[in-house]
Amino acid sequence: MGGSGPPVLVVTRLDDATADDVVKELNRRGVAVVRLDPGDFPAAVTMNARFGGSGPGGTLTTETRTLCRDDVRSVYWRRPTPCTADVAMPVQTARWAVEEARYGLGGVLACLPGAYYLNHPWRNRDAEYKPAQLATAERCGFTVPPTLITNDPRQARTFAADHEPVIYKPLRETEYTGVDGRALTVWIDDVPPELIDSGVRHTAHLFQQRVAKTADVRLTAVGDRLFAVRVDGSPGVDWRRHYDHLTYTPIPTPPEVADGVRAYLDAFGLVFGAFDFGLGTDGRWYFYECNPNGQWAWFPDHITAPITAALADRLQHIGDLA
Amino acid sequence: MGGSGPPVLVVTRLDDATADDVVKELNRRGVAVVRLDPGDFPAAVTMNARFGGSGPGGTLTTETRTLCRDDVRSVYWRRPTPCTADVAMPVQTARWAVEEARYGLGGVLACLPGAYYLNHPWRNRDAEYKPAQLATAERCGFTVPPTLITNDPRQARTFAADHEPVIYKPLRETEYTGVDGRALTVWIDDVPPELIDSGVRHTAHLFQQRVAKTADVRLTAVGDRLFAVRVDGSPGVDWRRHYDHLTYTPIPTPPEVADGVRAYLDAFGLVFGAFDFGLGTDGRWYFYECNPNGQWAWFPDHITAPITAALADRLQHIGDLA
Repeated sequence: MGGSGPPVLVVTRLDDATADDVVKELNRRGVAVVRLDPGDFPAAVTMNARFGGSGPGGTLTTETRTLCRDDVRSVYWRRPTPCTADVAMPVQTARWAVEEARYGLGGVLACLPGAYYLNHPWRNRDAEYKPAQLATAERCGFTVPPTLITNDPRQARTFAADHEPVIYKPLRETEYTGVDGRALTVWIDDVPPELIDSGVRHTAHLFQQRVAKTADVRLTAVGDRLFAVRVDGSPGVDWRRHYDHLTYTPIPTPPEVADGVRAYLDAFGLVFGAFDFGLGTDGRWYFYECNPNGQWAWFPDHITAPITAALADRLQHIGDLA
Repeated sequence: MGGSGPPVLVVTRLDDATADDVVKELNRRGVAVVRLDPGDFPAAVTMNARFGGSGPGGTLTTETRTLCRDDVRSVYWRRPTPCTADVAMPVQTARWAVEEARYGLGGVLACLPGAYYLNHPWRNRDAEYKPAQLATAERCGFTVPPTLITNDPRQARTFAADHEPVIYKPLRETEYTGVDGRALTVWIDDVPPELIDSGVRHTAHLFQQRVAKTADVRLTAVGDRLFAVRVDGSPGVDWRRHYDHLTYTPIPTPPEVADGVRAYLDAFGLVFGAFDFGLGTDGRWYFYECNPNGQWAWFPDHITAPITAALADRLQHIGDLA
């Protein structure tokens, strides 16, 4: 464990470079850290959670550490893998066992008495719904581009004609694998009205007016510490496609955007959020989305260092935790 | 739709006798009602949700009704079935389409501007985790029987020996089907220590001291209106097994239990809750669990009528909605 005082619990998978950076910083500061992946439960994680005065709160034991349930300083919830079942189990029993584990271990990890969550997993889950993001962003005073979520081809075509140019976005970054099992990414891209056909009928689709922009902004919020970075060099609408050509410049956050971010995080009960904006040719910041558990470690070091420090401060309880 | 003023949206499946009772009462009062099942999306439900000033908020259309997204009085969230995909789709595409629908329609239904939720589906979901129920119940001042949640056979045996008689409860009312596809119910039942074996290692298990009780209590809470019913005649620990032999007697709720219920609902952001207690031989109310979306229509009419009225009042916005 190393370090003194109550430990920070990091809930994530083995390969998580982002968590690695934060763990390294906590180690450097002498803060005790326990790392746990629910995917190791039940084979390599042992849980004893006690309620109703049957003794202290119990323990969680990984292959190298033991954590007292009553004595967790804070939880850094990152990218856990799901609970598992013994491969020898019949499929129905395995399914049942995994659900019991999910509700058992998941419930215990979500209710550690007195722990500070960054973020709470249930708040992340709420904040992942794009319609909720858009509705909340509007309520918090952000400028949202005209958007239609629909399964109605006629309305989609009318919207695309009225608001040209229009892009299509998936409603969720779900895994979409082809027939050969290969992962497919659904890119954000332009949609001319004439390409919208009866296929829209098959599920929910998000159409949004393409912002006339000069650049993109990724704003990483850690409580009230905001790290806005201007992203230049993306010729298209999805800068994830052009990592090699991008340049990053830290910029100040306008006060009205800072107010919106604060209101947005409060509305969902989040501490951390990775906000994406388009910097309009009209000078406005257009809200695209907020990933409550977004990546940030791919930025250059001079940008990630203060984010890592801000996260470690929060987990260590330095500064105001409001 | 019938009735005047903004409609109540009832989100549930076709066969839901409990919702039927509430809809009937709302109809009797002249309140407009729209019933929608996400399972009918996208084939028989059309969604147009607008954001970012591209016009009014949009509509949801079922086979018989159209609802304005900005004009929903309240939402009665009951037992919806999941969104579906065209059976002709390849399996990977169908899986993707269902997830898009779930996040699209699900997000829109969860964020209807200004609507009052009874209960909000995301609050139900949080409140379904039994470890969270127990931790919250303790924090709200309820008496919780000694309980251990574990995958550790040795700890389970020690707990069972120390707290005999001990019962086992599943952590979630999941569907558990046998090899033949038949649904299996996992009953709550006594567990002598010698029956606890290495199988405990396979997933999370909940062991709880069996309460020395004179009767059971089901307390249905609708905001601050509490309907406690004493259930007599169950010889065992799971009264669902003995419906035919039970008698029901409305009883008053002790003030300290009422305070606990209020605090518990607030902690989870719930309006409705179906609380189960054991009435101890020592006179105490022992908290077993709270089902945030529990059934209540199986009670005799003189018990259900005031519950139906209380739910209709809330959905109609009669009385304090705090």
